[in-house]
Amino acid sequence: MSKVITGATMSLDGYIAGPEESGFDLLFQWYGNGDVELPSASPDVPAPQISAASAELIKPEWANTGALVVGRYLYDMTKAWGGRHPMNVTTVVLTHRRPDGRPADDENFVFVTEGIEAAVAKAKQLAGNKDVVVNGGQMARQCLEVGLLDEVGVELVPVVLGAGKTLFGELSATPVQFDGPVTVVHGTGVTHLRYRVKQ
Amino acid sequence: MSKVITGATMSLDGYIAGPEESGFDLLFQWYGNGDVELPSASPDVPAPQISAASAELIKPEWANTGALVVGRYLYDMTKAWGGRHPMNVTTVVLTHRRPDGRPADDENFVFVTEGIEAAVAKAKQLAGNKDVVVNGGQMARQCLEVGLLDEVGVELVPVVLGAGKTLFGELSATPVQFDGPVTVVHGTGVTHLRYRVKQ
Repeated sequence: MSKVITGATMSLDGYIAGPEESGFDLLFQWYGNGDVELPSASPDVPAPQISAASAELIKPEWANTGALVVGRYLYDMTKAWGGRHPMNVTTVVLTHRRPDGRPADDENFVFVTEGIEAAVAKAKQLAGNKDVVVNGGQMARQCLEVGLLDEVGVELVPVVLGAGKTLFGELSATPVQFDGPVTVVHGTGVTHLRYRVKQ
Repeated sequence: MSKVITGATMSLDGYIAGPEESGFDLLFQWYGNGDVELPSASPDVPAPQISAASAELIKPEWANTGALVVGRYLYDMTKAWGGRHPMNVTTVVLTHRRPDGRPADDENFVFVTEGIEAAVAKAKQLAGNKDVVVNGGQMARQCLEVGLLDEVGVELVPVVLGAGKTLFGELSATPVQFDGPVTVVHGTGVTHLRYRVKQ
């Protein structure tokens, strides 16, 4: 059955980005420190080279992802990944206003303006029986707040950033409890943890 | 050889305390959800009842702790643990001013006013060849900033608190990289992770 999942690479002190969008070089070392290549469908994003242990977990997760939901911030920051998301699936972009000169939908991007529930519903429709992955923190927060999130994956990296953006940002409805970790995998320079939202 | 270690129970979004000192009931569930008892030397703190898996890690760590360093905030908040720290070792309290009516040192508490380096030196002297444990976040931060910290232990708990106090607070010298996790143990409702500060 199709699940709604979010994942983030996080520092040991809980930050998914350091001050002023710094720290990505350290957070994402594990994306380049191995010898198993994950294919990238984006012309702008090099194919990740990850450790065998990481790949054994991540490859099937990618293969089972049917659609993405992202916010407009990430879409703009990455310049639309050069035209297609690295994971090679249609990306639903939640935005207040569709970018100029873009169709409302094509095989690469679908723009949704009616809120997080509409965005996830659209992504589920696109994903069929595969999973929907939601990025980044603000989108994940909105999903969690309306009860749409099923799982969260944390890629815990042994670095302390001291300040920055936290996993879900400032949640309005806390605390939220999870089951797990249901999976723990030790990659090189990263510990992959998977949790299920308590129903 | 004697090491300087800090440890904290942390939420999945990086908080060691929720907003306005909330969330401790959820963070410290693992202190009461098992059937192995750790002895408590404090008249105010009940003996923790932890899972067998947690105990297998924590018991030897407690046994190998020779002294503690804490800040005045924790000392006051806990009301001096009723007279002696649960871990049954002398506790060095870093403070600007010694509390009224207390000796400068006895077997339970030693008050140090000359800064973190003096506090750690005193604790090392007391600990002999055992380890020194530093609590909470502000003390750990100061140790890390002056290069005195050797290891950090994170007890990662599957709850999201949304806001609060982070592991090391606002570090002045970041980023700091660690090796590990050198140890990962799955307790009930908690994942114990141990890291070494990169030298």
